[in-house]
Amino acid sequence: MSRVAAENQISPFFTMELDDFPRASHGASPSLGQLLKHVGDVRKEATGDGGETPLHHHHQVLDVSDESLDEPRTLPFVLSFTNLTYSVKIRRKFSLSGMFSSDRNRLGAATQAEPVGGESLFTSTKTLLNDISGEAREGEVLAVLGASGSGKSTLIDALANRIAKGSLKGKVSLNGEVLESRLLKVISAYVMQDDLLFPMLTVEETLMFAAEFRLPRALSKSKKKMRVQALIDQLGLRNAANTIIGDEGHRGVSGGERRRVSIGIDIVHDPIILFLDEPTSGLDSTSAFMVVKVLQRIAQSGSIVIMSVHQPSYRILGLLDRLLFLSRGQTVFSGSPAQLPPYFAEFGRPIPDSENKTEFALDLIRELEGSPGGTKSLVEFNKSWQAMKHTTNRTTDTRHVVPLQEAISASISRGKLVSGATNNDASPNSMVPTFANPILVEIAVLAKRSMKNARRMPELFGIRLGAVMVTGFILATMFWNLDNTPKGVQERLGFIAFAMSTTFYTCADALPVFLQERYIFMRETAYNAYRRSSYVLSHSLVALPSLIFLSAAFSATTFWAVGLDGGLSGFLFYFLIIFASFWAGSSFVTFLSGVVPHVMLGYTIVVAILAYFLLFSGFFINRDRIPDYWIWFHYMSLVKYPYEGVMQNEFQDPTKCFVRGVQIFDNTPLAAVPAALKLKLLDSMSETLGMKITRSTCLTTGSDILKQQGVTDLSKWSCLWITVAWGFLFRILFYFSLLVGSKNKRR
Amino acid sequence: MSRVAAENQISPFFTMELDDFPRASHGASPSLGQLLKHVGDVRKEATGDGGETPLHHHHQVLDVSDESLDEPRTLPFVLSFTNLTYSVKIRRKFSLSGMFSSDRNRLGAATQAEPVGGESLFTSTKTLLNDISGEAREGEVLAVLGASGSGKSTLIDALANRIAKGSLKGKVSLNGEVLESRLLKVISAYVMQDDLLFPMLTVEETLMFAAEFRLPRALSKSKKKMRVQALIDQLGLRNAANTIIGDEGHRGVSGGERRRVSIGIDIVHDPIILFLDEPTSGLDSTSAFMVVKVLQRIAQSGSIVIMSVHQPSYRILGLLDRLLFLSRGQTVFSGSPAQLPPYFAEFGRPIPDSENKTEFALDLIRELEGSPGGTKSLVEFNKSWQAMKHTTNRTTDTRHVVPLQEAISASISRGKLVSGATNNDASPNSMVPTFANPILVEIAVLAKRSMKNARRMPELFGIRLGAVMVTGFILATMFWNLDNTPKGVQERLGFIAFAMSTTFYTCADALPVFLQERYIFMRETAYNAYRRSSYVLSHSLVALPSLIFLSAAFSATTFWAVGLDGGLSGFLFYFLIIFASFWAGSSFVTFLSGVVPHVMLGYTIVVAILAYFLLFSGFFINRDRIPDYWIWFHYMSLVKYPYEGVMQNEFQDPTKCFVRGVQIFDNTPLAAVPAALKLKLLDSMSETLGMKITRSTCLTTGSDILKQQGVTDLSKWSCLWITVAWGFLFRILFYFSLLVGSKNKRR
Repeated sequence: MSRVAAENQISPFFTMELDDFPRASHGASPSLGQLLKHVGDVRKEATGDGGETPLHHHHQVLDVSDESLDEPRTLPFVLSFTNLTYSVKIRRKFSLSGMFSSDRNRLGAATQAEPVGGESLFTSTKTLLNDISGEAREGEVLAVLGASGSGKSTLIDALANRIAKGSLKGKVSLNGEVLESRLLKVISAYVMQDDLLFPMLTVEETLMFAAEFRLPRALSKSKKKMRVQALIDQLGLRNAANTIIGDEGHRGVSGGERRRVSIGIDIVHDPIILFLDEPTSGLDSTSAFMVVKVLQRIAQSGSIVIMSVHQPSYRILGLLDRLLFLSRGQTVFSGSPAQLPPYFAEFGRPIPDSENKTEFALDLIRELEGSPGGTKSLVEFNKSWQAMKHTTNRTTDTRHVVPLQEAISASISRGKLVSGATNNDASPNSMVPTFANPILVEIAVLAKRSMKNARRMPELFGIRLGAVMVTGFILATMFWNLDNTPKGVQERLGFIAFAMSTTFYTCADALPVFLQERYIFMRETAYNAYRRSSYVLSHSLVALPSLIFLSAAFSATTFWAVGLDGGLSGFLFYFLIIFASFWAGSSFVTFLSGVVPHVMLGYTIVVAILAYFLLFSGFFINRDRIPDYWIWFHYMSLVKYPYEGVMQNEFQDPTKCFVRGVQIFDNTPLAAVPAALKLKLLDSMSETLGMKITRSTCLTTGSDILKQQGVTDLSKWSCLWITVAWGFLFRILFYFSLLVGSKNKRR
Repeated sequence: MSRVAAENQISPFFTMELDDFPRASHGASPSLGQLLKHVGDVRKEATGDGGETPLHHHHQVLDVSDESLDEPRTLPFVLSFTNLTYSVKIRRKFSLSGMFSSDRNRLGAATQAEPVGGESLFTSTKTLLNDISGEAREGEVLAVLGASGSGKSTLIDALANRIAKGSLKGKVSLNGEVLESRLLKVISAYVMQDDLLFPMLTVEETLMFAAEFRLPRALSKSKKKMRVQALIDQLGLRNAANTIIGDEGHRGVSGGERRRVSIGIDIVHDPIILFLDEPTSGLDSTSAFMVVKVLQRIAQSGSIVIMSVHQPSYRILGLLDRLLFLSRGQTVFSGSPAQLPPYFAEFGRPIPDSENKTEFALDLIRELEGSPGGTKSLVEFNKSWQAMKHTTNRTTDTRHVVPLQEAISASISRGKLVSGATNNDASPNSMVPTFANPILVEIAVLAKRSMKNARRMPELFGIRLGAVMVTGFILATMFWNLDNTPKGVQERLGFIAFAMSTTFYTCADALPVFLQERYIFMRETAYNAYRRSSYVLSHSLVALPSLIFLSAAFSATTFWAVGLDGGLSGFLFYFLIIFASFWAGSSFVTFLSGVVPHVMLGYTIVVAILAYFLLFSGFFINRDRIPDYWIWFHYMSLVKYPYEGVMQNEFQDPTKCFVRGVQIFDNTPLAAVPAALKLKLLDSMSETLGMKITRSTCLTTGSDILKQQGVTDLSKWSCLWITVAWGFLFRILFYFSLLVGSKNKRR
C-alpha cells in the first residue's frame, strides 16, 4: 500500500483549469500551435523555468457522472459502437497428419461447420463478434469480461481499428463522427498483453525515449523530462525509476512495474482513448489492483479507458465503471458493476451475498454455455433489459455530445498533448501530423537507444567476437604459413572459401536479437512513433562500428598467420572485403529476421541458404563447370563475390610463382619419381616444346590459377562493390518486409 | 458447472471398507503382496472381470476433523515440518557489463549483503525459508500463500525433498519418522507448474502410459485400464478423454483440462502425499476452481495435498483446509480459513466483511513489507498466536499418530497402490521397489509412446525428409554425371565432403524435438517412472526406421545422378555409410540435447562443431598436411570417417583411370598447348622415363588419388564401423548426461 501512497499527489502535467482558457476562441477552434504555446506559458508560470520535479497540483477530475450540470463540456468524449459483427473463415486443415491419424481434433464449440456457397468444402465460418453495441465515456473505465475465446480481445481489436475494414461490420464512432484510422492512431493508444521493452534500459530511460518519439517536437527537452517525471509519479514507479527493466539474465523491475511501464509508454502523450488487452494477466492480486488503479486515474484525467480482463478481483471491480460480458461473441450483460445483482436477480439467478459478483456471473455464463440451450436465454434477456434501461434514460444520452473537433481542441487545451500536434488545419483528420519528429531526429534517437542498450549488454557483442576469434584462431593455426606449392594453392583456396563462409555464419548469431527487437519495432510503428525508414537506417548505422571491429579482428588474426599475399595493401583489401561480407551477411540476416517470425526456423533457413551459397560459390565446382541451369544461383551466391575478391587479391601478383620447375609433376603420378629423373624429364620436355624449362622456371603464376578456377569474370574491386551492394539490397528488402509485415491488423 | 456434475460420482478405484480388512494382521504388517492380492480380489468381486466402466461406489470420506472418535485410524498420515531454514549464497556478478554500465541492478529486498567470514566479498546470503513449522494431514488440503518471492515454491520443494540435504536445516517427518528420500519418491508425487505433456497423445492415452509406468507390474492391463477410467472420472475429464493434448499448431484440450491431466499423471498410483506448485496459475477462475475441487477430492480419498497458490478466489478458499501465509521466508499466518478474521482482528487490522479475506491478508502483508518495520510485528504476533493455540489443543495433537509402516500398510489396503509395490520386506524403506516394470517392458512402452507421437506428427519427419531431399536434389543436379578427368576428381571430392556434412547438418533439425522431450523425461524420471537406460535404448531404437528411410532417400537421389562408382555393391556401401552418418549425427545431436538446455544455443553449437568437423575432415587440408597440434581433432572429426569411407568406395577400383595420356597436362600450364604437341611431349617423356606412355596409358588410378589425398590409414569398412561406434559412444555419453543432468534438486 505504501507504494500507492503517491496516488493522491497525481500531477497531471500540463493540466490547466478550463476557465483559464479564453472562452471566446472556443467556437473558432484556436490553432493547436497557439494552444500548445499557451499551455507552455501556463506551465512556466506554475513551475518556474527549471526541470525540477513538478509540483503536485490539485487534480481536476471531471465529474462525468453528475448529469445535472447542464454544460456540454461535462461529456466531451463518447466512443460508441453499434452492431459490431466479425466473422472469420476457418480453413480446415487437410494435412498429412489427417491421413495418418484416425483421431480427429475437436473443433471449437463456437465453430459452425456450414460450407458457404462457392467456398471450398473445407472452410467453415466462425462468428467472433455477433452484433455487439455499447459505449465508453471519458472519465470511465470500460471492462470487457468473458472466458477465453469469448471475443474479448477481438472486441478490443475492433474498437482500436485493428481489424481490416472490409471484415468488420457495424459502426464505431467518436462523438458521433466515424473515426478515421489515422486520427485514431494519433489520439489513441493500444497496450498489448506482452511487455515488449528493452531489457537494459531503466524505467526512466524507457519512458524518456517514448516521450522523445511521441511528444511534439515543439516541446523542449526539459518539458519532455518533466512530463516523464510526472508520468513516473502517476504510474507509481518513483522507486523503480532508475532500475533496469531486466530479463531472464538480468534482475530488473517486478512484473507489475513492467506492466505499468508498458502502459506508461503508451500514455506518454496522454491519449484520449486507451485500449488494453488483459492488462492484469499474469500479475498477482496487488500488482493487478495497482495497474487498474493507475488506469482509473488515467481515465479520470480525461481519457476513455477500454480494457479486457479475465478475472477481476473484488477490489478491481470497485474501480471499473462499466462492464461488458461476452459469451461466444455475444453480449450477455452490459452495465455498471452495481447493476449486476439486480440484473441476475431479475434473470432468476440472484447472486449470493458472499460470492464474488463477477466470478458468479462468469460461472453462470459458462454453465449456460455448457447447457443444451446455450446462452441464448441470457442474450435475449440482456436485449430486453437494455431496451428497458434505454427508454428510461434515453433523453440524457445524446444531448451532451460535443462535435469531435471541438472536443479534441478542448481536450488539448486541458493538457492532452496528442502526439506531435503542431499544424493548424481545421479538419480533425489533418489536425495532427503523422509523425512527431523529422527523420534525422528519429534516426538519432533510435541510434542512441540501440547504442545504450548494446553497451549495457556487452556479452552479446562478446559472443559474436568470441565466435569470430575462435574460428579465426582455428583457421590461422590450421592453415599456418601455407607454402606456394600446388598443394599449398589448393589449401589457400580451401582457406578462402571457409573463411568467407565463416563471416556469413557468424552474422546468423545476431538473428535472435533482431527478432526480439522486431516486436518492439512493431509495437512502436503501430502508433507511428517513427518512420520505418528511420528504423532501417538507424539499424544499419548502429551495426557498422561492431562490424568494423569484427572484420579487423578476423582479418588481423588470419592474414599474416596463413601467409596471404599482397603486403599492407593486400591486407587492406582483405580487411575491406571481410567488412563488406559482414555487412552483406548482417543485412541478409536482418532481412530474414523481417520475414521469418520464428527464431529456430530463421536460423535453420539461414544455415541452409548459406550452405547453398558456399556450394555455388565456385569453390566446390568451378564457374565454367557449373551446369547451365544452376548458373543463376552461382551469381546469386553471396559467398561468390568475397571468395573471388580474396582469390584475386591473393593470386594477382604476376611475378609470384606457384609451380616452378619439377613441381609440375607434384600432383601427377610422376611425383614419386626421383628428382634427378624429374630434371631429365624437364629437359626432354624443353626440347619438344622448344623452350627451356629449368628447375627454376615458373610454370604457373597466380593468374594461371585464377584461370583454372574460373575466377575471371570480375575484378577484385568489382567483387568488393558488388558485396557492398548486396548489403544495401537486403537492407532495402528489409524495409519492404517491414512495410508489408507490420500491418498489425486482422483480416 | 455442468462439467463438474460428475463430482458426486467420484469412483475411488480400489477403495474398500476398512472393516473388510482382517484386523488381526494389522499389527504383524501383512506382506504387501498379500495386500495387493487381497485388493485385487475385492475388485474382482465388486466389478466382475471385464474392463467395463467402473461402478460408482459410495465414497468413504475419512472424517478427520471429528476428533471425538478415539481410534488411531482416524489420523493415519501426518506430515510435520519443524524449523525449516534454507539460505542460498548469491554470488554478485562481477561481469563485463558491470564495468561498462554505471547502473546497478536493484537487489531483492530480502537479500542481506553481509560478507560472511572466509567467503568472497562478492557473495551475500539470502534466507529463502526462515524457521518454518507446520503440519499437513491426510484428508486435508494445505495451501501455502504469499507474494512472488515469499518462499512458497521453496517451501514446497523443501517438503518434497527437492533441496539437497546439506542445505536445508530443520526436520520433515511423516508420522514421526524422518522420510527416507527413496520412500518419499514412491509414496509422493510432485506436480510442476508447467504442463509437460506429449501434444499428440489423447488424454486417455497420456494417462494410460502413466499407468503403465507407475502401476505395479502385478496388475493386469485391464485393471490398469479401469484405473485410468476411474481417474478420468475423478478428474472430470470424461468429455475430453479422446481429445489430444494439443500445442500451438494443433488444437487440443483447454488449459484447465491440461492441468488436470498433468495432475492425473502424477496421481495415477494414488500417492499418499501430493505436492503442487501453483496448480492454478494461468487458469481462469472456473478452471482454477475445478482443479482445486479435484485436489480436494484427492485429499478426501486419503491423501495429503500440499499446494502453493498465488491468489485463491473466494470459492477456492472454501476448498482449502489449512493456510500458511509466507512473507520473505517467514510464517505470518498459519491456520484454517475460518481463523483468518479472528487472527487479523486480534492483530488490530480486522478484515472488512465485503473484502476477499486472502486478498486483504496478502495486501496487508505487502503493506507491512513496504513499511519500515517490515513484517516483524506480524511474524511475532503469529508466534504468540500459535503458542496460544497450541496450549489449548496440544493434547489432541500427538495422540493419534500411527507408526509409519503400519500407516502405509493400512493405506495400501484401503486402495492406495503405491507405485509398483510388490516385495515383502518389513522395513518401510525397502517396502516398495524403485521401478514398477522390468527394463524390456519399459523400453517397449516408451517406444510405443514415441512411435504413436511421431505418427501423429508426420510433419516433423516430413520436414527432415524435405531437407534431405532438397539438398540431395541440388547436389544431384549440381554434380550431374561427373566425368573422370582431373577436374572431375576434384569435384567428386567436393561432392563427397559436402554430402557427408549434409547428413550431419540435417540431424540438427531434430534438436528442438529432443529438447522438448527432455523436459518430459526429467519429470518422469524424477519419480522413477522408468530407468534412464530404458529411455536411451528406446530413444535409439525409435530413431532407426526414420534414419533408414532418410539414408535410402538421400543415397538413391545422389548415387547414380552424380555417377559414383561401384555398381550395386558400391551403392550398398554408400547407403550403409550414409545410414551410419545419420546414426552418428543423430546420436551426437541427442547427446548435445542432453547437455545444452537451450534450443538456440544448442543449434549454434551444433552448427559450429559440424563446421569444424568438416574443416578437419581431410577435405580442406589433407591429413598429412594438417599441423601436428591439430591432428587429434582430425581423428575426432565425425565427418572424417564417412568422408574417407565414401572416398575409398569411389576410388577403390584399380582398373579405373582418372588421368590418361595427355590429361597429365590438364591442371598444369601446359593445358593450353595443342593436342599434337602434348603427344610429342608424352613421347619425349617416355624416352626419358624408359617406359612407353601413349594417349591411352593410365597415369593415375583411384589408389593414386587416395594416396594424394592422404586417405590411406583406414579401410572403407573400418570407416563404416568407426562411424557406427561414434554413434554408440554418443548414446552412452547421452546416458551419462541424463544421469548427471536430471538430479532435479536445489543445492
